[in-house]
Amino acid sequence: MFDSINIESSVPVYEQIENLVQFAIASGRVKAGDQLPTMMGLAERLHLNMNTITKSYHDLQLMGIVDAQRGVGVFIAKGVEAKCRKACREQITVRLKEVAGEAKAAGFSRDEIRTALSEAYASEAGPYASAPDSLLALLKQKKYGKRS
Amino acid sequence: MFDSINIESSVPVYEQIENLVQFAIASGRVKAGDQLPTMMGLAERLHLNMNTITKSYHDLQLMGIVDAQRGVGVFIAKGVEAKCRKACREQITVRLKEVAGEAKAAGFSRDEIRTALSEAYASEAGPYASAPDSLLALLKQKKYGKRS
Repeated sequence: MFDSINIESSVPVYEQIENLVQFAIASGRVKAGDQLPTMMGLAERLHLNMNTITKSYHDLQLMGIVDAQRGVGVFIAKGVEAKCRKACREQITVRLKEVAGEAKAAGFSRDEIRTALSEAYASEAGPYASAPDSLLALLKQKKYGKRS
Repeated sequence: MFDSINIESSVPVYEQIENLVQFAIASGRVKAGDQLPTMMGLAERLHLNMNTITKSYHDLQLMGIVDAQRGVGVFIAKGVEAKCRKACREQITVRLKEVAGEAKAAGFSRDEIRTALSEAYASEAGPYASAPDSLLALLKQKKYGKRS
């Protein structure tokens, strides 16, 4: 579930974790009662700061997506599938609008975007694997240097 | 050029400004020698902090996209169209990959995504007008309340 987490994405890591849990519920890959990895285990496996994981798990609990049982573990709550699907649909629609708007503003045709989307959908990489996406990040990678 | 700036977007405002300038160059809507709004004027018009605008203009200058002429103004640099188009194409492709990956992870079909994208492209709103896109932001709007 968490393999595509990427600290270089423009989506903050805590939000990637929250999203990935909800995508997994929305798609039926995890179900009510399934246990999330321990925070410590996840921090070690992904080389992330404990505070990041704590924030994600806390947010998920606030949203009612997971139940934390002290000393036992953190589990997917019952009856959240439909609202996860709805929330994911809303979120993805907003993101699509944003990127479609960017592409239009940059002068791309609809066909160009459709082709790029089909290629992207066909890729096996997870959602955040292809970051960074900011032009400044590209600059830092020196793909986009200062004009001479 | 800056009308779709939205402080609720997950894309930071300074980055929205940088992107919008580059999209306008990539699409040919602004050309070498065109003057950007004064920083003070833009801050007032968009109700933004001066530091935000200063950062954007400074980054654009670092990227070689604009030239600042002290006491005169900030102007689009010469010969940056091709590299803006290239950088925008890269950026948009990465963003499309990200959202396509999210949609796949959440169990959406390719046709569902294509339909959403077509609707989004047909919309007249600018790129950042439809924020917020985070699930936590939806929670804060109480669309997505705590489970009872």
